[in-house]
Amino acid sequence: MRTRPLKVALLGCGVVGSEVARIMTTHAADLAARIGAPVELAGVAVRRPDKVREGIDPALVTTDATALVKRGDIDVVVEVIGGIEPARTLITTAFAHGASVVSANKALIAQDGAALHAAADEHSKDLYYEAAVAGAIPLIRPLRESLAGDKVNRVLGIVNGTTNFILDAMDTTGAGYQEALDEATALGYAEADPTADVEGFDAAAKAAILAGIAFHTRVRLDDVYREGMTEVTAADFASAKEMGCTIKLLAICERAADGGSVTARVHPAMIPLSHPLANVREAYNAVFVESEAAGQLMFYGPGAGGSPTASAVLGDLVAVCRNRIGGATGPGESAYAALPVSPMGDVVTRYHISLDVADKPGVLAQVATVFAEHGVSIDTVRQSGKDGEASLVVVTHRASDAALGGTVEALRKLDTVRGVASIMRVEGE
Amino acid sequence: MRTRPLKVALLGCGVVGSEVARIMTTHAADLAARIGAPVELAGVAVRRPDKVREGIDPALVTTDATALVKRGDIDVVVEVIGGIEPARTLITTAFAHGASVVSANKALIAQDGAALHAAADEHSKDLYYEAAVAGAIPLIRPLRESLAGDKVNRVLGIVNGTTNFILDAMDTTGAGYQEALDEATALGYAEADPTADVEGFDAAAKAAILAGIAFHTRVRLDDVYREGMTEVTAADFASAKEMGCTIKLLAICERAADGGSVTARVHPAMIPLSHPLANVREAYNAVFVESEAAGQLMFYGPGAGGSPTASAVLGDLVAVCRNRIGGATGPGESAYAALPVSPMGDVVTRYHISLDVADKPGVLAQVATVFAEHGVSIDTVRQSGKDGEASLVVVTHRASDAALGGTVEALRKLDTVRGVASIMRVEGE
Repeated sequence: MRTRPLKVALLGCGVVGSEVARIMTTHAADLAARIGAPVELAGVAVRRPDKVREGIDPALVTTDATALVKRGDIDVVVEVIGGIEPARTLITTAFAHGASVVSANKALIAQDGAALHAAADEHSKDLYYEAAVAGAIPLIRPLRESLAGDKVNRVLGIVNGTTNFILDAMDTTGAGYQEALDEATALGYAEADPTADVEGFDAAAKAAILAGIAFHTRVRLDDVYREGMTEVTAADFASAKEMGCTIKLLAICERAADGGSVTARVHPAMIPLSHPLANVREAYNAVFVESEAAGQLMFYGPGAGGSPTASAVLGDLVAVCRNRIGGATGPGESAYAALPVSPMGDVVTRYHISLDVADKPGVLAQVATVFAEHGVSIDTVRQSGKDGEASLVVVTHRASDAALGGTVEALRKLDTVRGVASIMRVEGE
Repeated sequence: MRTRPLKVALLGCGVVGSEVARIMTTHAADLAARIGAPVELAGVAVRRPDKVREGIDPALVTTDATALVKRGDIDVVVEVIGGIEPARTLITTAFAHGASVVSANKALIAQDGAALHAAADEHSKDLYYEAAVAGAIPLIRPLRESLAGDKVNRVLGIVNGTTNFILDAMDTTGAGYQEALDEATALGYAEADPTADVEGFDAAAKAAILAGIAFHTRVRLDDVYREGMTEVTAADFASAKEMGCTIKLLAICERAADGGSVTARVHPAMIPLSHPLANVREAYNAVFVESEAAGQLMFYGPGAGGSPTASAVLGDLVAVCRNRIGGATGPGESAYAALPVSPMGDVVTRYHISLDVADKPGVLAQVATVFAEHGVSIDTVRQSGKDGEASLVVVTHRASDAALGGTVEALRKLDTVRGVASIMRVEGE
């Protein structure tokens, strides 16, 4: 074993960073044996230097992250600050000063992954970020390496624990969205400002990263269609139950049937109770991967939290350190396929539409005609009504999102349609 | 991209080998882009050279596998022959003549993994074998690399598709073992001689490999306790249902509570229906991994078959080719922890025991005394009887296998115990 230690700079010492530092200390002998050299925590950049950090030598703590990544003797920079800046500049500075980088920063990788990979390549350094998607669940490495000889056609996953906790609570208790969100906040599963989670921004960043790796194509955050889950109601869950389904916020990355383009999207969707993703409870994450040769694979585990995220960061740290000792770099960005990313209108799926309609003869015929005119084939219709009001639930066969959009627009113009109560995509069949 | 192709020799061209060759041809451009150089099938060693093999140039086919691996211009040898010899000699010969090796051979790796890794190291070559355990499911790479910074405490999995198909059929249809085996054979899920599957030899080889990687310790096939599933009866499934459980053939690798030793075992066990492994149907495989920081992870997918196994082989092939171009080798054997492997008697778990007893007063007291004398604490007892015969079902708290064995031995000596109808371990709680 090499005796000169590899030096690690830690940027950020919050929930994840403090756990990374703790494990580096308590499991130092194991890490050294697995890497082939000791690893040493050489500096910790924080915003509040006076905060007491158990187990971390105060002499290592600095507020000057830039000076830390510029030191020149750092082998690996671990970035667990999050957000775009200063993380982006610190990472590119680290590459320029000889360090490889392990990051848990989904927002940054989703937005600037291509540029960061280019910077890493320019300096022959590694950029690893297993922790950016689905916490401790090995997903980036299996997609990038284990399935490197296969053709991935679909990635379908629950990649946000907060929203899964809320939807699971709504499903289990019959609670409305606000009530379930309040519970999630009280239990620490939702942040004070839950926007990034409940509006799907967090999941969209992960979808962009997963689609890029799965399809060997650059997928920008802007390419990902995004719809949050704040408008999912108890009534939607009741409808889902009638269909033998539940509702999940899904990230879905698909290769078009002709193979010539891809799509990436995040939205709530009904999935059958028989689908393994339907049984993913509380804040757990799970991702289904469908590939040509391997078939259907599923990866399941805790999608967030200090320890699980630290596990993923440390796995990357060991890999990057091994590469460094061996004078090699791991697989970088693979975007050679450069497939076009199609807009949401091109996505083909099934739909569950609830309409409030006038309770009089001929309404169903009118509605059915609108669907037919837009080329959307109806699978089932269920009518119910009382007191002059009626509701119509239509489940379609597979149709493009554009065709469904046109259908709904035309439905809204019908005098007999009082309102479109909900539109929900049906996935996983 | 490098233009000189990497040369691949394929040993074996059966269900897996032919699929590897097919994908190497049909997806040549993708593989080249991902590797950074083209890969060329340079030779295929088979036993029956006259068999027509669609898509394979007959000029590449040879019966002289030894000459093929000795050619000296081969970059990677893909071994999908199976069995100990000639595979073992061919692999070591390949290393000595400059090639790295990708193997799908669980029996060989379980028996001789340490020696083969040593041979690979001696020549600075790679030995990869993702396909040896659980087919297409990425499991070796996640354990070896993604969890390299974590401490794995337990691996609990369904790693044999044939036995899972049989047990699932018994559970679903109420069929007996023989009937379910016949169905599995008719459908091609079981081989004409199913011994390796139903007696747990196949799963034991996988358990040895998984335990070795998970605990950074050499675990030999002989270290794995093995019990087949041929004696599981419809009555056992009925008992399991009463407990809210089903029965699976599990491979279980555990670190002892004090961390100082490990165990590995394969046997049928009851697991609660609420456990994700309980819902793994047909010939699917799934493996639960519990680690200190990551928590509970699960990996699910097809555990066998030509295409899924080929997917795993090709993922390894891409990795080994990349290493070769970069002048590096991937992580080899990691056995530094060198923990003792404890015998089955040291395993601590719960037990479900069915006894046929005389239907007279005092029997339960006698039986309970025997359990107490051996330090095995009883959780629940259920008595039922008619016509002078009675049965007693005892479910214990956690106890060592040795203590349970002593208990059962003593029970058999009681006049009032007519027989021990079944003993089943209870896992996953």
